[in-house]
Amino acid sequence: MNFSRLSSVKTKADDLAKLTMDKHMRLAVTGLSGAGKTAFITSLVNQLLLGAENHQLPLWKLAREHRFLGAKRTQQPHLHVASFDYQGGMDALHSQPPSWPSPTHGVSEIRLKLRYTPQSMLWRKLNNTATLNLDIVDYPGEWLLDLPLLEQSYAQWCEHIESSLQDSRKTELASVWQAMVQDLDIHSIADENRMADIANTYTDYLHQCKQQLGMHHIQPGRFVLPGELAGAPVLAFFPLPAALANSPSKDKKQHKQSYLGLLEQRFEYYKEHVVKQFYQQHFIKFDRQTVLVDCLSPLNSGHDSFCDMQLAVNQILHSFNYGKTSLLRRLFAPKIDKLLFAATKADHVSIDQHSNLVQLLSEVVAEGKRHVKFEGITTDTMALASIKATQSGKAQLNGESISAIKGILQSDVESQQQTTLFPGEVPSQLPQQDFWQQQGFEFSPFQAPITSPYQALPHHRIDQAIEFLLGDKFK
Amino acid sequence: MNFSRLSSVKTKADDLAKLTMDKHMRLAVTGLSGAGKTAFITSLVNQLLLGAENHQLPLWKLAREHRFLGAKRTQQPHLHVASFDYQGGMDALHSQPPSWPSPTHGVSEIRLKLRYTPQSMLWRKLNNTATLNLDIVDYPGEWLLDLPLLEQSYAQWCEHIESSLQDSRKTELASVWQAMVQDLDIHSIADENRMADIANTYTDYLHQCKQQLGMHHIQPGRFVLPGELAGAPVLAFFPLPAALANSPSKDKKQHKQSYLGLLEQRFEYYKEHVVKQFYQQHFIKFDRQTVLVDCLSPLNSGHDSFCDMQLAVNQILHSFNYGKTSLLRRLFAPKIDKLLFAATKADHVSIDQHSNLVQLLSEVVAEGKRHVKFEGITTDTMALASIKATQSGKAQLNGESISAIKGILQSDVESQQQTTLFPGEVPSQLPQQDFWQQQGFEFSPFQAPITSPYQALPHHRIDQAIEFLLGDKFK
Repeated sequence: MNFSRLSSVKTKADDLAKLTMDKHMRLAVTGLSGAGKTAFITSLVNQLLLGAENHQLPLWKLAREHRFLGAKRTQQPHLHVASFDYQGGMDALHSQPPSWPSPTHGVSEIRLKLRYTPQSMLWRKLNNTATLNLDIVDYPGEWLLDLPLLEQSYAQWCEHIESSLQDSRKTELASVWQAMVQDLDIHSIADENRMADIANTYTDYLHQCKQQLGMHHIQPGRFVLPGELAGAPVLAFFPLPAALANSPSKDKKQHKQSYLGLLEQRFEYYKEHVVKQFYQQHFIKFDRQTVLVDCLSPLNSGHDSFCDMQLAVNQILHSFNYGKTSLLRRLFAPKIDKLLFAATKADHVSIDQHSNLVQLLSEVVAEGKRHVKFEGITTDTMALASIKATQSGKAQLNGESISAIKGILQSDVESQQQTTLFPGEVPSQLPQQDFWQQQGFEFSPFQAPITSPYQALPHHRIDQAIEFLLGDKFK
Repeated sequence: MNFSRLSSVKTKADDLAKLTMDKHMRLAVTGLSGAGKTAFITSLVNQLLLGAENHQLPLWKLAREHRFLGAKRTQQPHLHVASFDYQGGMDALHSQPPSWPSPTHGVSEIRLKLRYTPQSMLWRKLNNTATLNLDIVDYPGEWLLDLPLLEQSYAQWCEHIESSLQDSRKTELASVWQAMVQDLDIHSIADENRMADIANTYTDYLHQCKQQLGMHHIQPGRFVLPGELAGAPVLAFFPLPAALANSPSKDKKQHKQSYLGLLEQRFEYYKEHVVKQFYQQHFIKFDRQTVLVDCLSPLNSGHDSFCDMQLAVNQILHSFNYGKTSLLRRLFAPKIDKLLFAATKADHVSIDQHSNLVQLLSEVVAEGKRHVKFEGITTDTMALASIKATQSGKAQLNGESISAIKGILQSDVESQQQTTLFPGEVPSQLPQQDFWQQQGFEFSPFQAPITSPYQALPHHRIDQAIEFLLGDKFK
């Protein structure tokens, strides 16, 4: 018997088995609010639906080799989960003047059936075409920021919040709910109305941190994106000063009904029924993940906003870092094998700045990425524009010709006048003190581009993202 | 041994056991949109919170006997269920000018702890006071209209909708989604976008039936109150013409992915995960029920609107009619032992019309009530005003002095001018053809009354409702 031949048959049989098994994939897309999740998914779906005929995806091997036969939208697997509103996004882009797709506020999903010609000779003999069912799942990155709560008691969480208030800008915003908390006799029997009042004031504070200070690191994350839980007591809690949260109750019997007792109960309920539930219902099922990061807006907003973004993004990455805590292993078996970091809105800086943008993103995610790679997850980092809103151009600066971008600024929607500008140099490293003093960078939002419904959306490197995320599935 | 004494001790022990067991009660409040659920619960909570000191509850025996010691709001049992917004309602009533509390759109709950002096000598010796934990649960009556779906197949539901379209006013509104459905090749592979488009158009039609025609009998009920299910495929279905829904599929294999196949799947999913879930999570736990009915608005809107309201209310009562179908017995064990029918907004007609209003309500609910009573459920029927917006007065009609009402009409909010009017006679029977021809009735909405935060809200017969619903619990 010829062993090498036997082994070769076995390899082919393995390949075949792999192909038949590899028919489904759940690709998750996340990022903080404003990172561009909706635009990314809208463009990704658009490229896949129209990509077989459009020749806009040269970096995707399957399309380059003309083995991609096309895609169709089919019924999503979970009937009670919101559908990702692809059509709504396309309608917005094709309105006059075009507008960006509306942001999403919770989990949504969409399923595409991708058809292709397989590479394997054996498979091709058996079957002319193969199919990949691709589920794309969108969820707010903010929800992953709640992960650390799972390992904290209520008192520990209060300590954490107290230390975060050392930031002077937060101190001022926090004064209203803090004053309400100071007056509280935390061991007395709780008044539901007062609990709800303080919780509402704390939620207002979180909204202000987000909107006025450009902060992303909001805890608990569901307070600003409550969905179906709006008005429920599980969201009617708030932090106490650490000294109070740690003060023992005088009356053990009354404790359960006291302010402190209720705050502890609700904190535990939130961990168990809100945070864990997301991991168990959704996160556990993801095969691959894209983390989108908008590095440009925080460059505009200043040092603190940038640091907060960096902190939040790295906090998000802890969820992919199964090894670090036994807690996560208990919650879900590691499954994700590839993770893409993408700096979005690359069309909002000139093309010669793209490599700086990639390097900046690499530094932003460096810490989290190291842990993720240690888990055996393959990662890649790139800069992309999901829907390209500008053209490359040239501008004159001090008599020199420099790379610039050209498009309609969001502020010129009425006049529809084109502007050519050079937003400045993107730092290739985490910006140092002198960067913020010079303020050499000004990133301006552009209107969505005018596009035709018959052509795929213009983009930068969506094809490179597809190649990294899906490329190996089309053997 | 003295048997009669033994028996008397046994009775006392039974009484005692009953008292200790009777510590919790879940009182459900429902009604169609606009029936006045929020005003009823706001006033009920207000009367109980302030009732021990205010002397506004003479028809409640406990209060009359000065055995009611007071009530406090405490933590509701389900932390993930929205809290009934009592404080928001009171703030609206105490704003200037006062406004009615905002309507609710789903399930919400609130818990009160009622403290009283028990009647039983034995109990009084053991303990000076006793406590009843009262949960008040608010839910839309529309959700109960989906009950019949549980016994229908998709094709049977389509037949039912088709027959309901014989109403000529509906036919016109229905033309848009019907045209979209006509063009569908229901055995071809479904296009998700088109499914969603038609479902949205069907949902628009349901909203129009509700708003333009004043119809309440909307199926499926969740389409107009989607809550967390907004945008999910479980709400992306619609009825087909009965002949189409009954046409066998040509290709059994393709059926699952065809329009007809998906419509059938989603209809079944809706029954299983939306309709049944409400019964299992909430309905099964109710001890007593109030069904609120606004008989006055449909008297304004005309014959069809009145008939639709009557149909819808009786349809709601099917959910309390356990014996009728074995399905309901399988879904939940019968538990409700008292059911109150209340005609709301009695302050919007003159006081001499209240007895007519009760009689009219009795006729409206006659059919459903008969079945409910057959189940052994005790019922009562009354006319009430949760928050009294008018005063009784006298007016002159053709030289005669008649009973009238006086208050600020909703249309006079700006001028805050008082109006005295006689809205007409409420028919004491289901109105016949000549009633609609004469149009002798005109019911006008009044502004919420100006009230003091230190006094309980003015009302008509909330105390009578309390006596019926809770009275026997305070032994």
